[in-house]
Amino acid sequence: MTADEGDLPDIRRDVPTAIHTQISEHIRLRIASGEWPAHYRLKAEPELSQEFGVSRGTLRRALVTLIEEGLLRQVRGRGTFVTSTVIEPAIAQKLSTLSEDFASQGVVTSTVVRECSLITPPPPVAALLDVSRTTRVLRLVRVRSTTEGPVALLFNFVRTDLAPGIEQTDFTQSSLFGVLEGTYGLKIATARRTFSAEAASPEVAEALTLTAGGPVQYLQQVTYLADERPVEYSDVWIHSGRLRVTSLLLRR
Amino acid sequence: MTADEGDLPDIRRDVPTAIHTQISEHIRLRIASGEWPAHYRLKAEPELSQEFGVSRGTLRRALVTLIEEGLLRQVRGRGTFVTSTVIEPAIAQKLSTLSEDFASQGVVTSTVVRECSLITPPPPVAALLDVSRTTRVLRLVRVRSTTEGPVALLFNFVRTDLAPGIEQTDFTQSSLFGVLEGTYGLKIATARRTFSAEAASPEVAEALTLTAGGPVQYLQQVTYLADERPVEYSDVWIHSGRLRVTSLLLRR
Repeated sequence: MTADEGDLPDIRRDVPTAIHTQISEHIRLRIASGEWPAHYRLKAEPELSQEFGVSRGTLRRALVTLIEEGLLRQVRGRGTFVTSTVIEPAIAQKLSTLSEDFASQGVVTSTVVRECSLITPPPPVAALLDVSRTTRVLRLVRVRSTTEGPVALLFNFVRTDLAPGIEQTDFTQSSLFGVLEGTYGLKIATARRTFSAEAASPEVAEALTLTAGGPVQYLQQVTYLADERPVEYSDVWIHSGRLRVTSLLLRR
Repeated sequence: MTADEGDLPDIRRDVPTAIHTQISEHIRLRIASGEWPAHYRLKAEPELSQEFGVSRGTLRRALVTLIEEGLLRQVRGRGTFVTSTVIEPAIAQKLSTLSEDFASQGVVTSTVVRECSLITPPPPVAALLDVSRTTRVLRLVRVRSTTEGPVALLFNFVRTDLAPGIEQTDFTQSSLFGVLEGTYGLKIATARRTFSAEAASPEVAEALTLTAGGPVQYLQQVTYLADERPVEYSDVWIHSGRLRVTSLLLRR
């Protein structure tokens, strides 16, 4: 970094505030202002300590404070990064479920089951599930929340000819894919997921604490077994301010 | 399908309209009503012809009409499906670009370049591109349209130290990744893409013929070279009614 940056920290040695505290506060402000956005990789420690005009040990102490606060994270062999303030499941890239992704990222969530009953599906859902319109399917409605609040409202429609009795499951404790694969031994193989921005209906807005008519991330999914039979259809509404669909992609 | 479907077609042999025309019209209405949604797989031809009470040849003639109209498509070995009315690039699943995805799907698009100039980047973009805030980068603003209208508004910021002179490219004819890889020999390796629903700003709404404040699909991307240097940052605004981000995923 050169003088053209124009915002070298003003480290003061004539005040009672410790140098490492001044540095961590300076970095905190850069993160809060958005100047150092989520996923920004900080310069290497030798360069950064030189820039701040402090020893490696002092810089390190400032960084450790911010790592403990969750504002920075270190990835072995890659460096120090600014942490994202939203959860970032890779559900567009992998056929994992939100609950699996939360578990692998160590995100604690809670689930409220709003409905778990047998219904006759709407005609488009019947068509995509390849059942007649009078066949009863499971309708499962759940709200998943983190400590920040609700992040997703899920409507799942599940073929009960493939999973008889599934409506008796306690879905506050069990995941849908877990039950289909574990309890019923079904081989979930593929899914089509589409993502679009939609206007929140009053019902969606209420569940996700959003403004009705405002933007909400919509995910539609059809899940297929290894023998190509569809097993599940879902409409998922996601609070983009708390959960951002993320893909880490390779070119080749 | 059984009698419980309640909507068996009323094929009439006492009218001048040909039977195959009646069948294709019946299917057209089911698609238009959403009863047979995009990606619905039709029953196999023997079953379907029995249901309609017509010969395989008559059914086949009706299907061919609809395939020629683009309402149905046949996939060898898998069956006949209802075509999606929106384009569905797999940009959340693969590190392909919109233009590459359009080309592979045979979608014809046009590009208007609104800006192609060297600027000093906003601080968060400078941070993610790992350049100082006074380094000049390419800012490329494009609108991509299909015959339906504008589908995406793209803002790309590109490091010119890695691609000197890139601002002289005619981006109505060339793709950005094509130029970076072809002309400059850069090895694009990875990208992080995030997807969220946002409210359209007046500028975005105007470009995409949307309502300001209404929902728009937002994609943020940072692209990295094989040596992990960031080369490009982008903000992409997508018209969800015309283009739906799609992933076809495998469980294992």
